[in-house]
Amino acid sequence: MAALRLDESASGVFAIAVTPFAEDGALDLDSATRMVDFYIGCGVSGITILGVMGEAPKLAPEDSLAVAGQVIAAADGRVPIVVGVSAPGLDPMRALTGAVMDLGAAGVMVAPAAGLNTDEKIEGYFHAVCEALGDTPIALQDYPPSSGVHFSTALLNRLFDDLPTLKVLKHEDWPGLRKLSQFRAAETRRVSVLVGNGGLFLPLELARGADGAMTGFAYPEMLVQVCEIHAAGEHDRAEDLFDAYLPLIRYEQQVGIGLAIRKETLRRRGVIATAATRAPGPKLDTDDHAELDRLIARLDRRLDALGIARKNV
Amino acid sequence: MAALRLDESASGVFAIAVTPFAEDGALDLDSATRMVDFYIGCGVSGITILGVMGEAPKLAPEDSLAVAGQVIAAADGRVPIVVGVSAPGLDPMRALTGAVMDLGAAGVMVAPAAGLNTDEKIEGYFHAVCEALGDTPIALQDYPPSSGVHFSTALLNRLFDDLPTLKVLKHEDWPGLRKLSQFRAAETRRVSVLVGNGGLFLPLELARGADGAMTGFAYPEMLVQVCEIHAAGEHDRAEDLFDAYLPLIRYEQQVGIGLAIRKETLRRRGVIATAATRAPGPKLDTDDHAELDRLIARLDRRLDALGIARKNV
Amino acid sequence: MAALRLDESASGVFAIAVTPFAEDGALDLDSATRMVDFYIGCGVSGITILGVMGEAPKLAPEDSLAVAGQVIAAADGRVPIVVGVSAPGLDPMRALTGAVMDLGAAGVMVAPAAGLNTDEKIEGYFHAVCEALGDTPIALQDYPPSSGVHFSTALLNRLFDDLPTLKVLKHEDWPGLRKLSQFRAAETRRVSVLVGNGGLFLPLELARGADGAMTGFAYPEMLVQVCEIHAAGEHDRAEDLFDAYLPLIRYEQQVGIGLAIRKETLRRRGVIATAATRAPGPKLDTDDHAELDRLIARLDRRLDALGIARKNV
Amino acid sequence: MAALRLDESASGVFAIAVTPFAEDGALDLDSATRMVDFYIGCGVSGITILGVMGEAPKLAPEDSLAVAGQVIAAADGRVPIVVGVSAPGLDPMRALTGAVMDLGAAGVMVAPAAGLNTDEKIEGYFHAVCEALGDTPIALQDYPPSSGVHFSTALLNRLFDDLPTLKVLKHEDWPGLRKLSQFRAAETRRVSVLVGNGGLFLPLELARGADGAMTGFAYPEMLVQVCEIHAAGEHDRAEDLFDAYLPLIRYEQQVGIGLAIRKETLRRRGVIATAATRAPGPKLDTDDHAELDRLIARLDRRLDALGIARKNV
Repeated sequence: MAALRLDESASGVFAIAVTPFAEDGALDLDSATRMVDFYIGCGVSGITILGVMGEAPKLAPEDSLAVAGQVIAAADGRVPIVVGVSAPGLDPMRALTGAVMDLGAAGVMVAPAAGLNTDEKIEGYFHAVCEALGDTPIALQDYPPSSGVHFSTALLNRLFDDLPTLKVLKHEDWPGLRKLSQFRAAETRRVSVLVGNGGLFLPLELARGADGAMTGFAYPEMLVQVCEIHAAGEHDRAEDLFDAYLPLIRYEQQVGIGLAIRKETLRRRGVIATAATRAPGPKLDTDDHAELDRLIARLDRRLDALGIARKNV
Repeated sequence: MAALRLDESASGVFAIAVTPFAEDGALDLDSATRMVDFYIGCGVSGITILGVMGEAPKLAPEDSLAVAGQVIAAADGRVPIVVGVSAPGLDPMRALTGAVMDLGAAGVMVAPAAGLNTDEKIEGYFHAVCEALGDTPIALQDYPPSSGVHFSTALLNRLFDDLPTLKVLKHEDWPGLRKLSQFRAAETRRVSVLVGNGGLFLPLELARGADGAMTGFAYPEMLVQVCEIHAAGEHDRAEDLFDAYLPLIRYEQQVGIGLAIRKETLRRRGVIATAATRAPGPKLDTDDHAELDRLIARLDRRLDALGIARKNV
Repeated sequence: MAALRLDESASGVFAIAVTPFAEDGALDLDSATRMVDFYIGCGVSGITILGVMGEAPKLAPEDSLAVAGQVIAAADGRVPIVVGVSAPGLDPMRALTGAVMDLGAAGVMVAPAAGLNTDEKIEGYFHAVCEALGDTPIALQDYPPSSGVHFSTALLNRLFDDLPTLKVLKHEDWPGLRKLSQFRAAETRRVSVLVGNGGLFLPLELARGADGAMTGFAYPEMLVQVCEIHAAGEHDRAEDLFDAYLPLIRYEQQVGIGLAIRKETLRRRGVIATAATRAPGPKLDTDDHAELDRLIARLDRRLDALGIARKNV
Repeated sequence: MAALRLDESASGVFAIAVTPFAEDGALDLDSATRMVDFYIGCGVSGITILGVMGEAPKLAPEDSLAVAGQVIAAADGRVPIVVGVSAPGLDPMRALTGAVMDLGAAGVMVAPAAGLNTDEKIEGYFHAVCEALGDTPIALQDYPPSSGVHFSTALLNRLFDDLPTLKVLKHEDWPGLRKLSQFRAAETRRVSVLVGNGGLFLPLELARGADGAMTGFAYPEMLVQVCEIHAAGEHDRAEDLFDAYLPLIRYEQQVGIGLAIRKETLRRRGVIATAATRAPGPKLDTDDHAELDRLIARLDRRLDALGIARKNV
């Protein structure tokens, strides 16, 4: 089978996958397989693994390859798999990229190294990255709360103009609505813009030119439907659906503990076997569980009121 | 008239007020008066002026005093007025505090100076502040995204234990739900906890022991009602009302441009004459205005669907 | 007398002045006068007041004007006085600038506001500053450890190309030697580059094209001589002199307590009456005093060994 | 041979080793062997590898083990080898620790993970680290400019009181002289304090209770002698020697390019074959080389003037 390759036409929802662990922190590859089927059942266009929410920095290289291999095999060509390869050095980044592309990945995701604090430095860095990674398709992640690196819009346009292997802008600067409009207005090559931040602003971002989302909210079927309904021109219906989930999106959007909330939600939905994170990682306590119970129950009631059938996953 | 004084019993909603300007940046004191009546008409328990969202750092000292004087006079003892006095030096802080307390302020709000990066340094700072400000009642602002200063929960408890003039914790660390629970569980003197962040987590925070909110969302009447309905034990009804506004709360929760959104909303509601901010400050463009139109129209439809009458303000 | 005006020919040493206080924190204007005579006696080309080391953020506006007025009057046209006017808002910056230029200042110094994290934002900011300040000559301060703002070299060149009222680059990025070389190589209008950081790299920076220093080391006569001897082509002799003071320069180069060290050294030299800083500010303890005793004694012995006569100040 | 183990008696100089590369970025293990002999010839008490200056984050795990194995074998029990194992996750940290201790390392060095911004969080982190690493002796690195994490003195004392496997405080907060004095005064168990920052304040730190240095200045023989002479009570002679090298210490103390300067100096001294760093990494240009030529020539003349014989290495 010819491998799927990430390109500028990426749209819809790329699920940012968690990395499933057993309670003792061992990889849980069975859950990884189930998760792939779940995401594909939700209608996603692709899956992105080994990002920040995939606890990539806490994995040994052999763990990373095991996860990538399992996910790519489970997807079996049904959707493209993008692999996060951000690293402080270009050598480990190149090595991991080569290995996952050999396994059948569709492309890689790269966030800038810490400490790049001027346009010049960021620009030099991505030129070096693209040279190091050859013809591998790349999703550039613009996520300042995690990287501490800030891209100006002009710089983003320049990078995508100059570096043809950059295919997707994972846009999650915040606030970033105007940045998205300006990026679109100035681009000379039409690339894919997929938004992050759990989808918190998804309907507004679709209206401003985003092609979809690359994010990990625990109800990806909703994000998929919102993209589809919006594409069909029914903007208010898309936003009605979205707003029903907004209390939970907001709840998941808590840096740190958000990962534990997301994993626990996926666990409750039968996707992964445990909500365990690797140390040092967040854990829910009794109050958190009660809060999540309540918010999920409220979501159910709201969906009933809207007459929305639950996706069977 | 005996001046109102801020104390540990503060509850409900303290509105974080904007500072109204004319288009040329001059103070618009008529709008300030109208704003006070608006907030009081919304049912707020108090008003806080000259915070970050009040553009305090862009005011000359005489501007600050003019605003404080006008607001305190307009309130005329109906609700307590808290004044932000954060400053890099204790001398200007003490001077401003003395002046506004003489004008009839009920207390002051203090955020830590930039660069305090250990518990020891923060602790030393607030001991010095409290000594400098004598018996003035103080609301301590814990807002890391603005101050860059991080309080551990143990430190907050220690500060409130040791410093009796600290009356209110303005809690807007994020994520901060567990911090709020832990603070309450460990406190030895019951103080007021009022939450910020535009109220984004208000219902959850009330359930975890908050006494109310000190924040500036442009529909304060909703925050007031949520606090009241929650206090009456109708938690789901409170959250239903809250959720109707959540798309707008999220929209306002964009650092930087959020202030322009808030001012424009207040302008549309007839509260202030212009949405002008002082330079350097954010401005809405055509896309932003259209987005806000749409979100407000959606809110109206949602309130109609819920059968909620609009507050006449 | 026609006021001196800062321009692109600025060279030699501009002393960054402290603000002298009495033990109780009151302004000590007699010491300010004595300090001006001291600096001029040291051979400085100019004096810069109300910078970070002048504790400007801890001064009330009337204090700032009192200091500026006293220093400008004491200098009496002998050397230009540059006044730090950095402020979060452009209105207070413009007001202070107008007031000090009316008093006879030669120009102002501006550091970027906090939070400017891309080339675009910094560029927009300085265009707004220059427009707000009209034809006032400006020294742009590039000092990331204090401002948290990072200028790329290309951005600095662009700003100086586009904004004719920018006259001086106060260069204290660190490390910054290559930045200085690159700035000089690319500039199209020859402007003044004066270095900071206490002069820690002064001889190397002079060799790379700096015109002098704008810094506050407590022995400015040495910085003046190093500039003069270097200008005369005797680079090794300049560096021999510099190296004798290097242990003390390094000692003063401790953020925070460095100001207390500098003030105490000036006090010991008879320049200012007390070493007091305004709260919150650093204070020397017994260990620090003993260390400073020792380092000054060692300097004296080293100067004797080099046969260098002490400047009588 | 019983493996050497790091303990509270560590003193003198632990050299922070670079990782030698060929021009193409491959590991240069021959140079690693030569480097070990060089350091031991300089009189160091130990060698620390795989720290920030060892470019650890740019090494693949197999590279890290290859370097550790080679260095430990080359040292052959003559001095203890400490290995940097800082990592975002505890699992990789534990795995690397186990592997290098099996190879014969004497202990490990741990810097806090990024983002720990309160005493509580740092304390929790080090308790988890110490539990994960069992009885492995640990050097705790307090280096805020690299980690972004700030320890209060009280916290450091508490950690060393509570966690018996913490043996060494690698102290390189800056400014940090008073912190060192306060830590010593309050400690209940006498531990080793070794200072960093290239040794920039070494004589002052020895006087305040440091036991030596753990740092990578390219002339470690001087650091060793300064420690010895200081220990013999000849404080001025120690400082005279130190001051001769101060211009170069200052020059190396430039974050980023400092590593390239250090490697080039070691290359010139015949220790390593190339000055190559792994990408992204700093490189010296013509100006930098000329500057380094000049500073080294000046050092030679100064040592001659002092009648100090050069260490034959």
